[in-house]
Amino acid sequence: MHRLHRLFRASLTLDEPVLKTETQHLSSTMFAAELAVARRAAAEAAALISLREGAERIREKGPGDLVTVVDEAAEKAILACIRGYFPEDAVIAEESAARARPTGRRWIVDPIDGTTNFVHHHPFVAVSIAFADEDGPAAGVVNAPLLGQVFHATRGGGACLNDRPIHVSPTSESRRALFATGFPFKAGKGNPEAYLQLVLEVLRSSHGLRRAGSAALDLAYVAAGKLDAYFELGLGPWDLAAGLLLVTEAGGEVSGWPGDEAGPLTTGRVIASNGPLHGWLEDLVGRHVGPL
Amino acid sequence: MHRLHRLFRASLTLDEPVLKTETQHLSSTMFAAELAVARRAAAEAAALISLREGAERIREKGPGDLVTVVDEAAEKAILACIRGYFPEDAVIAEESAARARPTGRRWIVDPIDGTTNFVHHHPFVAVSIAFADEDGPAAGVVNAPLLGQVFHATRGGGACLNDRPIHVSPTSESRRALFATGFPFKAGKGNPEAYLQLVLEVLRSSHGLRRAGSAALDLAYVAAGKLDAYFELGLGPWDLAAGLLLVTEAGGEVSGWPGDEAGPLTTGRVIASNGPLHGWLEDLVGRHVGPL
Repeated sequence: MHRLHRLFRASLTLDEPVLKTETQHLSSTMFAAELAVARRAAAEAAALISLREGAERIREKGPGDLVTVVDEAAEKAILACIRGYFPEDAVIAEESAARARPTGRRWIVDPIDGTTNFVHHHPFVAVSIAFADEDGPAAGVVNAPLLGQVFHATRGGGACLNDRPIHVSPTSESRRALFATGFPFKAGKGNPEAYLQLVLEVLRSSHGLRRAGSAALDLAYVAAGKLDAYFELGLGPWDLAAGLLLVTEAGGEVSGWPGDEAGPLTTGRVIASNGPLHGWLEDLVGRHVGPL
Repeated sequence: MHRLHRLFRASLTLDEPVLKTETQHLSSTMFAAELAVARRAAAEAAALISLREGAERIREKGPGDLVTVVDEAAEKAILACIRGYFPEDAVIAEESAARARPTGRRWIVDPIDGTTNFVHHHPFVAVSIAFADEDGPAAGVVNAPLLGQVFHATRGGGACLNDRPIHVSPTSESRRALFATGFPFKAGKGNPEAYLQLVLEVLRSSHGLRRAGSAALDLAYVAAGKLDAYFELGLGPWDLAAGLLLVTEAGGEVSGWPGDEAGPLTTGRVIASNGPLHGWLEDLVGRHVGPL
């Protein structure tokens, strides 16, 4: 691992040619430098994930919540990259202690979203990196190395999958729509029965429901029209920040749950959709929100 | 599409060099010719899937059950390939009318398992082809073109992912295990509430539950140790035949549901696991089997 680290660290200088090229290419876009750094940091973490996909488990935070070496190494690589280019910015990352939530220039980082999948060698795994300012997420990258998919977006600049523009689906009828959610219940917490009633109602009135295990990737799939809508609760800002920007920049809609006073980055409860299905899903979630 | 068809049809002759090479390479294995034909037929269908991943919907069997041009073209290509090499064998395929269930030499074919995913451009899509004789599945291929994963197995010959041997996971504790299932309920059929009680119990005692939407690929993932166990009901033999062989040849265990007198290929109800978790999952399913 140390050799690997040196390998990546060696290229972390401000005049690194790859970054220059990316920045030049994107110079007409707002947040071009932030996007380039997010892409580069995500690519470093993605390389670690690809290289160490078979890594053994070495530490567990507790049942159902595994942390691997790779998770920590990926976060270190991302943070070093971001701090190399933007040393003044704050960083909010899932695995590190820096969990303060500043409101100025900040980076919101999940080195491996879908850790459970990663531990089990299931390919739905993503690196999620967002840059945010006073107005929220402004540049975001979701890199799924085991699927070969890199999503990115900048505020006002649209969203892309592998550098091609993406758009949400036009689906307006729930019975033709593919939904996604998670079952975010640790033992003894929340009300899984009530959540399953909501899930059951979605199942009854839709074309299908998927549970892939990575919120960042579920949001990216809504952005790309591979899913029509997504809802979940119990999420951290690192799961959401990049994906929410992807959805809005791809023409979709994001909101908290009905009745929430704060937004999804604060409450961890989210509805994201292609737009036409948003009201339908909001109504449905609203009818079940009481016991949750 | 007709040009595409001609392209594929043109190479369907018995002395096609690719097949010869594969057959020679596998000549020490039982069912080598059947495996080579299954691989070739699946590769043709996979090529159609990759080429036409963006195909528009043109026909619907009914709400929640879409059939695309590609599904039908893929089945035609598979059947032509199989009949070219083994004209005497029976074929059981999802989309065609030939739904008799003979017991002699037969091919069990699902041109696109995960049609809903395919229609929505979600990558969990697989071609499933099995050859079976009096003793059940003897050669099987699950080809997931949008994931770049080809699984194959022969009876007694082991299972592979992209030509490398695979094995089920050693996980023996449910709380460390990743499970998969489906929600196979069409409007007005079955007892989804009872099924969700079963799902809830798995969620409570496991590391996670996935719902990817392709039974063939779920089984292949159990074989490769990417999932630890899988259970579902309401399946056709075309969803199961190749995947069941993958699991047993990778060292896992497959069974029907507790109390079923016939096997999964007849009842459409299946439990597939790495082995150590089989009894635990069987007990759990058994406690919920009454109302289902």
